[in-house]
Amino acid sequence: MKAYNDYKNEELREHLLSLLAQYKEYQAKDLQLNMARGKPCVEQLDLSMGMMDVLSSDSDLLCEDGTDCRNYGVLDGIKEAKELMADMMEVNPDNILIYGNSSLNIMYDTISRSVTHGVMGSTPWCKLDCVKFLCPVPGYDRHFAITEYFGIEMIPIPMTECGPDMDMIERMVSEDASIKGIWCVPKYSNPQGYSYSDLTVRRFARLEPAAKDFRIYWDNAYTIHHLYDDDQDHLIEILAECKRAGNPDLVYKFASTSKISFPGSGIAAIATSHNNLEDIRHQLSMQTIGHDKVNQLRHVRYFGDIHGMIEHMRRHADILRPKFELVERILEEELGGLEIGFWTKPRGGYFISFDSLPGCAKAIVARCKKAGVVMTAAGATYPHGIDPLDSNIRIAPSYPPLQDLEIAARLFTLCVKIEAAKSILTQRGEAVPAK
Amino acid sequence: MKAYNDYKNEELREHLLSLLAQYKEYQAKDLQLNMARGKPCVEQLDLSMGMMDVLSSDSDLLCEDGTDCRNYGVLDGIKEAKELMADMMEVNPDNILIYGNSSLNIMYDTISRSVTHGVMGSTPWCKLDCVKFLCPVPGYDRHFAITEYFGIEMIPIPMTECGPDMDMIERMVSEDASIKGIWCVPKYSNPQGYSYSDLTVRRFARLEPAAKDFRIYWDNAYTIHHLYDDDQDHLIEILAECKRAGNPDLVYKFASTSKISFPGSGIAAIATSHNNLEDIRHQLSMQTIGHDKVNQLRHVRYFGDIHGMIEHMRRHADILRPKFELVERILEEELGGLEIGFWTKPRGGYFISFDSLPGCAKAIVARCKKAGVVMTAAGATYPHGIDPLDSNIRIAPSYPPLQDLEIAARLFTLCVKIEAAKSILTQRGEAVPAK
Repeated sequence: MKAYNDYKNEELREHLLSLLAQYKEYQAKDLQLNMARGKPCVEQLDLSMGMMDVLSSDSDLLCEDGTDCRNYGVLDGIKEAKELMADMMEVNPDNILIYGNSSLNIMYDTISRSVTHGVMGSTPWCKLDCVKFLCPVPGYDRHFAITEYFGIEMIPIPMTECGPDMDMIERMVSEDASIKGIWCVPKYSNPQGYSYSDLTVRRFARLEPAAKDFRIYWDNAYTIHHLYDDDQDHLIEILAECKRAGNPDLVYKFASTSKISFPGSGIAAIATSHNNLEDIRHQLSMQTIGHDKVNQLRHVRYFGDIHGMIEHMRRHADILRPKFELVERILEEELGGLEIGFWTKPRGGYFISFDSLPGCAKAIVARCKKAGVVMTAAGATYPHGIDPLDSNIRIAPSYPPLQDLEIAARLFTLCVKIEAAKSILTQRGEAVPAK
Repeated sequence: MKAYNDYKNEELREHLLSLLAQYKEYQAKDLQLNMARGKPCVEQLDLSMGMMDVLSSDSDLLCEDGTDCRNYGVLDGIKEAKELMADMMEVNPDNILIYGNSSLNIMYDTISRSVTHGVMGSTPWCKLDCVKFLCPVPGYDRHFAITEYFGIEMIPIPMTECGPDMDMIERMVSEDASIKGIWCVPKYSNPQGYSYSDLTVRRFARLEPAAKDFRIYWDNAYTIHHLYDDDQDHLIEILAECKRAGNPDLVYKFASTSKISFPGSGIAAIATSHNNLEDIRHQLSMQTIGHDKVNQLRHVRYFGDIHGMIEHMRRHADILRPKFELVERILEEELGGLEIGFWTKPRGGYFISFDSLPGCAKAIVARCKKAGVVMTAAGATYPHGIDPLDSNIRIAPSYPPLQDLEIAARLFTLCVKIEAAKSILTQRGEAVPAK
């Protein structure tokens, strides 16, 4: 394929006209497709239906230590659930608190507590004039929404294939005591699917923040969410690494079973140092008598142990892998060599990240929408929804069935081509055909 | 029985010696009993075991509107759960948000949001020098713990059989704009089991608070938790009453199924005006993608409708009633006429409130503990755990089996008698026998 930039003006205009004609055909199809959110598809949900059978009226609902899961109590979560989540999160069960159904909720509550009560005795952030967070970009919109909601200033940090720019991070956190945290999705990152390199994790664990209440918000959402059996990313375990580096309290690690069992009906947990846990537990004892232990027990009885969970994830991968491969194949077929877009090829997680020519992302997403395909809003992967280059688009291939996904992906590439051709012609000062 | 105050000194001392001898016999029994927390007993938990069967791998887990409860989404809660909770809370389903497993958690989050973001656009409480709450006393320790945790000044308001002192409340909230809320358990109150009179509720709905962000925190924890079929308290519905009074935004109402299905694995909800809901929903959309819809569906399928729930509560009452009646009988048998204690006789809820002679409560609870019976800490029913008269003790009869409850209640009355006799002798300037 010839790069769009090598097209002569007239040639590119002709090409654009034919693309627009194709687009009209798509519009006539009345599509209603969605590649916006990282939602598991129905077949994935079906995988966990056995969850509904493991507890019955004949079950005892007792923990190994005799705790009756049906009654009040056990603030931390039941022992066997802590063990299961600990194996999943690669930490000691003693470092875990089990929460309700959502790790996002834990992150929100963690920020909220820091705002009202500080971190391990520090000044509550609401008493400070300025609180800042570092935000590797592109990143997860719901992370940014939380910090924005609390009026926290967000500083974008560029991502690389090895993780965020560590030179910048090291310099900034050591110089500026108003920087209190950094959002990280360290494995199969949202949206790029990058995993932090060993060196990146080691440098994180050795940060020397000016603020004593600085914490790394390590959202390990995709820790066992591989697409391949034989080609998996490996991430150094951050709690242990922080401990080794003499910074045991530096990190909060979050995870949930949302994309393992049922989204919204899973269990979520935080893993962190004993000092941090003591701080959290004090607050948590004000907030609740305890989270849903029956659901914790349900997860333990269903998965048995981490091996059962890993086997289960293999079945998820079998459903997701063809979807990722389909989208990647179409991107390659339609856009390969055109030099109008760049996309990632993750080995796990839920997203493919696409970068269009600068200034085209909003127009591409809008054009997809007008033909009935909903994408994540352009800009969503940046703080305040503002992508300075207007180029990043998050593709979520998990939810649509394969045949829908193929149509959606083809339409997407068509919109990419149209907006690229328009952009190039405009930049050359050439007239652009009307829609 | 003769009142202790009518005993001559020597007679009372003799009596005390015989009480202490009885106490020694109890100590020899090595008891391990608990009347401290309002926990349902095992037989009550058994009532809900059918909850574990209503969903199975053959179930569809779909809402009537087609929503798949297994996937992400539906911030407010599923429609049919809102209807069930609305019937239970006596409000319109449109006025409901379903949360996770704990109404305490909703209350905490409500206060926390007000601290960080204010109420419907008001100044966040963290930016104010002084925030105060009115606290009807005796009251629920976990309410007071939340306000204490957020540094909110607590002003005790005396309770009467008709509810808290409304003259005081009306005056204070109209004069002091730093008063932002009041904790209420309006039906079968914790710990007294009193229900607010019609007049009290009407006066609540017609409060004219100086603070625009003043709200009534209406914790209707025991709304359908009657002990008797034919002798039930009735409470005027506060949302409707506030609306009628032209104060639609004045109240947050909380409830949960914690003592209906399984404590810790139920569903909880807030009911309030559309203006308040809009405020809450904005914050909630930052905090979570949605609460556990599968558990919401489980509750709907199990109870069917409010009638099913009411029938279920009847079965709870059948278990609880004999326990309340036993404790009341023993209190009457052991303490009737002695004029050394006053106790309530609730028609619902989870507690009996006991008032000893002033200055005796801590000593009574400590003495019970030394003989192996754990009571709620004396003072717990007051802000900061300080009962100025040191007389209120909360009795929770629900958890122990009847035969244990009988022993615990007898021991309790013995400790009441011992401490009363000691107190009277001391006040008379008489020597008190060594333990």
